[in-house]
Amino acid sequence: MTSSDSAPPASDAATKAPAKAPAKAPAKDPWDLPDVSGLVVGVLGGTGPQGRGLAYRLARAGQKVILGSRAADRARAAAEELGHGVEGADNAECARRSDLVIVAVPWEGHGDTLASLRGELAGKLVVDCVNPLGFDKKGAYAIRPEEGSAAEQAAALLPEARVTAAFHHLSAVLLADPEVEEIDTDVMVLGEERADVETVQALACRIPGMRGVFAGRLRNAHQVESLVANLISVNRRYKAHAGVRLTDV
Amino acid sequence: MTSSDSAPPASDAATKAPAKAPAKAPAKDPWDLPDVSGLVVGVLGGTGPQGRGLAYRLARAGQKVILGSRAADRARAAAEELGHGVEGADNAECARRSDLVIVAVPWEGHGDTLASLRGELAGKLVVDCVNPLGFDKKGAYAIRPEEGSAAEQAAALLPEARVTAAFHHLSAVLLADPEVEEIDTDVMVLGEERADVETVQALACRIPGMRGVFAGRLRNAHQVESLVANLISVNRRYKAHAGVRLTDV
Repeated sequence: MTSSDSAPPASDAATKAPAKAPAKAPAKDPWDLPDVSGLVVGVLGGTGPQGRGLAYRLARAGQKVILGSRAADRARAAAEELGHGVEGADNAECARRSDLVIVAVPWEGHGDTLASLRGELAGKLVVDCVNPLGFDKKGAYAIRPEEGSAAEQAAALLPEARVTAAFHHLSAVLLADPEVEEIDTDVMVLGEERADVETVQALACRIPGMRGVFAGRLRNAHQVESLVANLISVNRRYKAHAGVRLTDV
Repeated sequence: MTSSDSAPPASDAATKAPAKAPAKAPAKDPWDLPDVSGLVVGVLGGTGPQGRGLAYRLARAGQKVILGSRAADRARAAAEELGHGVEGADNAECARRSDLVIVAVPWEGHGDTLASLRGELAGKLVVDCVNPLGFDKKGAYAIRPEEGSAAEQAAALLPEARVTAAFHHLSAVLLADPEVEEIDTDVMVLGEERADVETVQALACRIPGMRGVFAGRLRNAHQVESLVANLISVNRRYKAHAGVRLTDV
């Protein structure tokens, strides 16, 4: 069998394109990622399960983490519980003091929270990990934000920030379990600027078991955010805490 | 750290739900799948790269496959090239003679093709594997069908068929390469009826390396279909033929 007489299939088309391009400098090694160990990481919505879990894993890996919440005292209490040098602050101080800010607030408060932090987030690298989902008796389903995705809403509300999207598919149960040494999953990282995406990839790679993998532009964030609805079905059927690995990468 | 004082995170919530349900018969083993070796599998759009690749892999695994195309002679020529007992027919005959019909037509012809085969597909198990995508100079992007997804469009157009969705993320290059013995990927299978979903899972499991994993209802098909846009970015960056594995399953 050959496929030479057919148009290239959608999922392979892009792989072939470079072969047709004129010869130029060799492509940069996609695994040559920056050292991010000195970055201060803020986690907005850091008292929720996803934010706490991420803060815990990053701090345990040696990253300086500031956990943000609407109420500074709740953030400080959660930070103290996490240990590993995590500090707590209100969301505004968290954003101001951090180089990279993970957005882990509930979808319901996503737009308002970010709009209120536009000044503090100016110039920052923002990592949106919010999954807009609805729930009814048939389970979870995707909500499509007017802007296309939570990440694109963030980009629209934060024109002076550098917005990326990542960390959507992590099990908060696994993140929070101190007995779990490695989190067996890839982290799909989306964004417009390669340097920003690579910084977030490198951050994901600091957590044992995780790889940060570039997975497209923000306009393709909706399906990555929504895939959590499918993982919830998987978790229920297989009694699992499912993650996602990309093969052949 | 404990998460006992927090609401369960979205991606874990469903895992916990059964614990609260009253005691009842043990859940069915999700890997107890039916024997599908006797089913005749039709592939509509079987002369395109995805359809040909799937037809080849299924026939090579011992399944009886009928490859369908708008033009019967093109289908017969492609079938002969594939070998392994594959037959070719026009789409209507392919649908009529098959127990299970894989829809691998281009998105552009999806609605018209299915509408024209409503009678032939009545009562059949239909497996939609179409990815509605657009392409521009920035790459691939998701198209959102009015019905929500290609699979939901199929369900709307084929009220007498049993519509499922699967086989979205396969590399046609790998499928077609006779040197490739195993395809290292999971196949997310979506549908409304467990028996139908399990039949499709079992079909995926016939191809060495593949697992068919239940991944939700049809209303959550859009993100699975669209994820191919992200895989195209992955393929380009990493010079890969990326697939998807679900971890902890």
